[in-house]
Amino acid sequence: MGEKRYAIGVDIGGTTVKLGLFNLEGEALEKWEIPTVKEAQGFHILPDIAASIRDKAASRDLALTDVLGVGVGAPGPVDAEGTVHRAVNLGWGVLNIPQALQALLELPVKAANDANAAAFGEMWQGGGKGHSNIVAVTLGTGVGGGIIVNGSILTGATGAGGEIGHLHIVDGETEACGCGNFGCLEQYASATGVARLARRRLEQDQEPSVLRSGELSAKAVWDAVKAGDRVAVQVAEQFGLYLGKGLAAVAAVANPEVFVIGGGVSKAGEILFDYIRPAYEKYVFQGCRNAEFALATLGNDAGIFGAAALILN
Amino acid sequence: MGEKRYAIGVDIGGTTVKLGLFNLEGEALEKWEIPTVKEAQGFHILPDIAASIRDKAASRDLALTDVLGVGVGAPGPVDAEGTVHRAVNLGWGVLNIPQALQALLELPVKAANDANAAAFGEMWQGGGKGHSNIVAVTLGTGVGGGIIVNGSILTGATGAGGEIGHLHIVDGETEACGCGNFGCLEQYASATGVARLARRRLEQDQEPSVLRSGELSAKAVWDAVKAGDRVAVQVAEQFGLYLGKGLAAVAAVANPEVFVIGGGVSKAGEILFDYIRPAYEKYVFQGCRNAEFALATLGNDAGIFGAAALILN
Repeated sequence: MGEKRYAIGVDIGGTTVKLGLFNLEGEALEKWEIPTVKEAQGFHILPDIAASIRDKAASRDLALTDVLGVGVGAPGPVDAEGTVHRAVNLGWGVLNIPQALQALLELPVKAANDANAAAFGEMWQGGGKGHSNIVAVTLGTGVGGGIIVNGSILTGATGAGGEIGHLHIVDGETEACGCGNFGCLEQYASATGVARLARRRLEQDQEPSVLRSGELSAKAVWDAVKAGDRVAVQVAEQFGLYLGKGLAAVAAVANPEVFVIGGGVSKAGEILFDYIRPAYEKYVFQGCRNAEFALATLGNDAGIFGAAALILN
Repeated sequence: MGEKRYAIGVDIGGTTVKLGLFNLEGEALEKWEIPTVKEAQGFHILPDIAASIRDKAASRDLALTDVLGVGVGAPGPVDAEGTVHRAVNLGWGVLNIPQALQALLELPVKAANDANAAAFGEMWQGGGKGHSNIVAVTLGTGVGGGIIVNGSILTGATGAGGEIGHLHIVDGETEACGCGNFGCLEQYASATGVARLARRRLEQDQEPSVLRSGELSAKAVWDAVKAGDRVAVQVAEQFGLYLGKGLAAVAAVANPEVFVIGGGVSKAGEILFDYIRPAYEKYVFQGCRNAEFALATLGNDAGIFGAAALILN
């Protein structure tokens, strides 16, 4: 049996499964993808992953015994034992990922929620590198969160630790969030949320704005902010108010060293922080005021990095 | 050298220092107090504690070498190394408690923030027994919080983890919180906060209420609630709305198994939960809806229990 020199990170998404082969230094030696086959209640997903890992190892002339283990990030609440409780996007009910995948691969397996894994990845090799208390916020289609406390993922009692997209932020909201509640942070700070804020602002009056032509996306809003569009700036201020308020609440609970902001909306860059910080500083407990804001750097690879880190850290 | 059979828990308060001698089973064999001498920038506090421990050991014919160590809870932000950063109530600036006390006692010393220590105590031997993910909320003069994640205190980057009394809850508040912000949970859910809510309610109109005579305290409010006083019930509903909303935010971050509610206000008993739960369930993320509510059971001893648990757990 050779020396254990590798770890594999797997990030299961609704359409594709991302995989990465890592060395012990945390470098991604190879990244690849396979489709997520969701039919038959997601029954094929783990066998497909196992087969793909075996194929990859064979193609690289690499023995599976050289692999320390496989880390898996899955979309849904994953508890401390690696059991996912209903992953709606995959068709899964209750499934212990380590047990199931270990049986197929004869390798140690660890699993975490995908957003938590991404946060772990950003701490390990990304925007949170060098810190051990971080809050990662993913501003994508929704708002995901992952919290690392003292170098460990805050999983919580039912795997819902760090679900900061569902912090209640706005009273009196009339549209429902995907979770069924009204006024969740996700409804204003996600990509669709920013577009919603812009749409509502435009409906208020007739003030001219570049946002009145073309597609109303988060990207369009931030491009307009950078171009000095007054209406877009007001939208950004509202986004910053809600997100800053939400992160202030997170800080009073978790007191992180740094907030690492990723996801599609974060492509706007550090200008985001100019809008988040005023509300954050207004509402946050004094002792948490010095938390840093940083951009995520691993992009869509954060999940495979974090999954591998479950094995290597 | 004998067998290590004891641990000592110390809870430093603004007026008294509470101490407890514990056996390894977590039973308090003896509890005692000494005054907190705050003059000379609190310079005497740790030597007084060391002397008191030596005296107690001598009086019980117990060798200090039989003591596993001393745990200390202190009022102020205490980081993971046991350094307190400005304990205003004691006159302390920056002080590493383990180093300082170890030098005086030649025993291992660990330190934590007092609210966090109390939470740890409630998990060990109190209302959170049997759980490893708890949020302890102390509704006293202020609102303190302590969060235990996976059996460990969530200290945070600067020792401000679990400062849930300073969650921003109400917009447009005109009175300042002790922390300098406006609209903190502490302003409505502490003992003084409940009295403030009652005072404001009484000023609104002339509706008869037993609260219009006698001292306006949290106890008076809850006694009136139990007697069916309509005005008091409205005050309790507002208290429940704010606290339930705050705990829903805490849940989306920390996802505890149980909220353990203590402090003076909690003497009202489980009736509190009838007022907290509706708002909690309305605002909380679905995956956290099943968190339990329990009353703290250790009262003022939670601090010494938790401090001892720093050594024994």
